[in-house]
Amino acid sequence: MFKRFSGAVAAKEMLLDRCLPIRRTEILSSTKAAGRVTSEAVISPVSLPGFDRAAMDGYGVRSADTKGARLSAPVFLKEFLALRAGNQVPKDYDAVVMLEDARLRESMLEITAEAHAYRNVSRIGEDIRQEETVFSEGHILRPPDVALLAALGIGDVRVYARPKAAIIPTGSELVAIGERPLDNGEAYEINGLMAKLYMEKWGADAALRGIVPGDEGQIREALQESLDADIIIIIGGTSIGEKDYAPRVLMEIGELIVHGVRLQPGKPTAFGMASDKPVVCLPGYPVAALADLYLFVRPALQKIARKSDALTVVRVPLARKIPSRPGYLSLVRVALKDGKAEPIMISGAGILSSVARSDGFVIVPEAREGIEEGETVDVNLFE
Amino acid sequence: MFKRFSGAVAAKEMLLDRCLPIRRTEILSSTKAAGRVTSEAVISPVSLPGFDRAAMDGYGVRSADTKGARLSAPVFLKEFLALRAGNQVPKDYDAVVMLEDARLRESMLEITAEAHAYRNVSRIGEDIRQEETVFSEGHILRPPDVALLAALGIGDVRVYARPKAAIIPTGSELVAIGERPLDNGEAYEINGLMAKLYMEKWGADAALRGIVPGDEGQIREALQESLDADIIIIIGGTSIGEKDYAPRVLMEIGELIVHGVRLQPGKPTAFGMASDKPVVCLPGYPVAALADLYLFVRPALQKIARKSDALTVVRVPLARKIPSRPGYLSLVRVALKDGKAEPIMISGAGILSSVARSDGFVIVPEAREGIEEGETVDVNLFE
Repeated sequence: MFKRFSGAVAAKEMLLDRCLPIRRTEILSSTKAAGRVTSEAVISPVSLPGFDRAAMDGYGVRSADTKGARLSAPVFLKEFLALRAGNQVPKDYDAVVMLEDARLRESMLEITAEAHAYRNVSRIGEDIRQEETVFSEGHILRPPDVALLAALGIGDVRVYARPKAAIIPTGSELVAIGERPLDNGEAYEINGLMAKLYMEKWGADAALRGIVPGDEGQIREALQESLDADIIIIIGGTSIGEKDYAPRVLMEIGELIVHGVRLQPGKPTAFGMASDKPVVCLPGYPVAALADLYLFVRPALQKIARKSDALTVVRVPLARKIPSRPGYLSLVRVALKDGKAEPIMISGAGILSSVARSDGFVIVPEAREGIEEGETVDVNLFE
Repeated sequence: MFKRFSGAVAAKEMLLDRCLPIRRTEILSSTKAAGRVTSEAVISPVSLPGFDRAAMDGYGVRSADTKGARLSAPVFLKEFLALRAGNQVPKDYDAVVMLEDARLRESMLEITAEAHAYRNVSRIGEDIRQEETVFSEGHILRPPDVALLAALGIGDVRVYARPKAAIIPTGSELVAIGERPLDNGEAYEINGLMAKLYMEKWGADAALRGIVPGDEGQIREALQESLDADIIIIIGGTSIGEKDYAPRVLMEIGELIVHGVRLQPGKPTAFGMASDKPVVCLPGYPVAALADLYLFVRPALQKIARKSDALTVVRVPLARKIPSRPGYLSLVRVALKDGKAEPIMISGAGILSSVARSDGFVIVPEAREGIEEGETVDVNLFE
């Protein structure tokens, strides 16, 4: 029996309660800061545009001089300046007359349309004023934001550090990928790679440690060596029984908050704290580990990284009924086919080919017993 | 007047017609192939599991020997084998009895529950059979797919190459980012950086060329030097008037398909072909360039890259009416606030700060004249 058994939603909330937004910051070149989060307000050192700017090709004039000008009653100006779009409009002038409303007559300019003040002029500071706040703290810098920093001549920007994640794969049957051919009873350690790829996609710098064959002492040591990370993932050794190493280590050197979750797949999930760092223990079965990555690790990491990208969701009817265990939250793999979600009803949490055939997953809430055929569901697409 | 003026949706279709899915392939280490697209079917060299495997700790037995076993009528076996989860189940045995249903009695094993054939056994090939197709051609490899390749011992995989994009910024007023302080009338070249960051996010290897000050000869030369790319972006010099260089070069050395699009912002957009490569000419105003990147360049690149990620969409009511020009497709920047989409009604296509304040954009279709307050809209979140 699990001693700290929990519902899936409650477990997620407890985990998120213990994850704190990162406070480390670093200074980056603005052009390298796409996807990063500002850690302080960004104030503009300049105005943009930095001067009154001609918005099109034409002639700089004093708007007052053009009063009443029309085709049937043109006005002739002595003082004017030919301008190209982007040129500075000199202080003496306050409007730009388009080429089609003006004609040079020897040294005079014939104007056939009245120009109001600042007609065809992009005014100084129209986009950003000097000393204006360009971005507040906590802004995720997207490519146009990086472009705006560059436009303002802001070469460096202070951003939050990417969270550091440590991944500890455990299991005496595991062999590192590609290390050597497998003997019977062995398997390649693939969950660590999957976790690393996802966690990097979700904004972390993830370090995958060597395989820990699996006794308690070695896991404790690996965990203690990983406490400089902002979040630690231990894979394997979470089930009840002889091999229940990871939760026991957590209980011994830190705090075990949850062990066992009403989640299908992913029941033998555990998490707790070690030296104020959240430690999530994933089952060794890859589909269960994947469910945990999406349900627990992704939101935890996003909270730490101060980001909150939503998953891409497709709303389609269900092609066949999904059964589910009452009281349990289920992540059901589905394939999109002919505009419907086809459940991949393979129960084995070790069957990774079921994910290869899936486009995403449907969540069956704890309070429901399955979802009927034809009901419209949200399919969360696998990234 | 634009000579090849087009509706926005029609223009997009014409562009997509001319973009061909990439055919170049390359071989990558499987662990580096996340996000890439398989260019041939992947066949498994082995079965997974590679042997009948104990699914839990227990005793390997012959299922026939356990017939009728129950608590009140245990069966005693002489032939059995203690197994850990993951161990091979020897040929002579076909089931694993859980620890709680079995007890060692000197050299005999007492069984208190009947085990049917293959009870608690993961059968050879249960996940993937040898010679089975693991992925068909055109499959986008996600992290669990990469994990599956690794589990099968498949070290390398053939994938389509990432499309090559060339970006040519043009304009005599432009200065490279950070090169030197600006003189009046100058601006930093930021659209190229924005295009590069987005195109890399969308799956291309994007090369940003040096600024072309802007005469026709130089643009022609830069375009001709870029024809090894799969798609070419020219920024600036698209408007009607003296500076209409990019479309003229395209007409001269290739084919100009569209010049001028009923799109707000982004009317002075052009595209055509040069040496069978699609060339998209974006206006120099950054918000118009951004609209073009999302409306034209993103789908073009995805078709070339053989991918089709959807944008993340939020459906919310509109906080205020959006006006729009009939017959034009409009991309309206909006901020999400209190569960509503607040339009950022700044008309200037040069006002990049309006994007900094936006979370995404709403598309007003060509057939509509604006969208009323309160109507539910799809907000496409900026990436």
